[in-house]
Amino acid sequence: MTRPTITAFDWVPDFAQGQVRDLRVRWALEEVGQPYDVRYLSQGQQKAPPHRACQPFGQVPTYEHGDLTLFESGAIVLHIAESHPGLLPDDPNARARAIEWMFAALNTVEPPIMDHAIATLFEADKPWSRPRLPAIMARIDERLGEVAARLGDREWLDGDAFTAGDLLMAAVLRILRGESALEKHATLADYVARAEDRPAFKRAYGAQMAGFTGNPPPEIAAWLKKNTQAMGEMR
Amino acid sequence: MTRPTITAFDWVPDFAQGQVRDLRVRWALEEVGQPYDVRYLSQGQQKAPPHRACQPFGQVPTYEHGDLTLFESGAIVLHIAESHPGLLPDDPNARARAIEWMFAALNTVEPPIMDHAIATLFEADKPWSRPRLPAIMARIDERLGEVAARLGDREWLDGDAFTAGDLLMAAVLRILRGESALEKHATLADYVARAEDRPAFKRAYGAQMAGFTGNPPPEIAAWLKKNTQAMGEMR
Repeated sequence: MTRPTITAFDWVPDFAQGQVRDLRVRWALEEVGQPYDVRYLSQGQQKAPPHRACQPFGQVPTYEHGDLTLFESGAIVLHIAESHPGLLPDDPNARARAIEWMFAALNTVEPPIMDHAIATLFEADKPWSRPRLPAIMARIDERLGEVAARLGDREWLDGDAFTAGDLLMAAVLRILRGESALEKHATLADYVARAEDRPAFKRAYGAQMAGFTGNPPPEIAAWLKKNTQAMGEMR
Repeated sequence: MTRPTITAFDWVPDFAQGQVRDLRVRWALEEVGQPYDVRYLSQGQQKAPPHRACQPFGQVPTYEHGDLTLFESGAIVLHIAESHPGLLPDDPNARARAIEWMFAALNTVEPPIMDHAIATLFEADKPWSRPRLPAIMARIDERLGEVAARLGDREWLDGDAFTAGDLLMAAVLRILRGESALEKHATLADYVARAEDRPAFKRAYGAQMAGFTGNPPPEIAAWLKKNTQAMGEMR
């Protein structure tokens, strides 16, 4: 049986290490016990034509297996979950609910969290970012409160079984790891800690971190140096 | 065979009519020829406990069929596509690519478009919205250019067959209907027009519009009146 190949970066800024989207795919592969290969891209290569042919948005990860090439980490996680036992329940209704949580993670919970990342990192130096922050935090707090209310005292979102829905929800929530926005919802912080304590997560995380052997291009290093103080002031 | 029941609003502001997320579910049901019932909610009911029990985020639509209750329109569209022929190709690789476009629509293309909606509608009166607009438009333009480049001169994203991926991508892009941000990408504007010309879309759109028989609560009417000028100035 051939192994799939995914793509990942050989370097990202510190704030993105452990958060790049190939982590979600690595985690799913580790959960189902599927070995994989990695093709590393240096910064800039993701926007060049050879990678664009696989990934129209110039991002990582991609997933190649036989004659199938996929992009979009949510779709890749679902493909892995459908192709192997372990991440989707057998019961059809429970399976549909696990997929529902995948979409909820990516389309309802992640957008305000990524908006926060844009405001505090990529647009930390923009004059509009600080005034907007309370509105962004209110939207995040509303969503997290709703997820916490639904989770209640269950171990995972739909009960006792960890699913691909939990994988993506935990991956989205842990973008706020260590932030008061997450910590104030204690059951969610515990949920993320439970997810990060899974052996498959630890292997995936370790593998992503071990892959950062490259260096930033000069223009990114200069951008980081210029904006580090503004980023620090926004958090 | 029982019919599924979805939820929808009996009133939304003009700018949201024809855009509420139940349209995506109605469209999928029309494409596969599945009749359905609608339970209408007046504004406010979506946040009350009975609906929250079905939809943790207090939104529409939901989907109830037998003992299955689902929320999150992307997940519902996928469930419909998996349960009926017509929206997912039989070939496994083409099927995976159709699902990939569903996730791309919702997790990569829709977030900047919804950011634009927040800035120009819900936060039209905030001092930070206008200065931010060029950055938002640049992000939208980048994503739309990438989708247009991949679409090329094909009829649909993966070739000749309309899939659930096209349904969601067109539903996301048509949020920008009539805006220069979309019109400048002529192939995408044509793609949206092709999608909207499908009989199933027209039936779904007509059904959503016909359902707006209610009235706004006084506080929403007051908010709209207060913000109409600011919204007009942002577009």
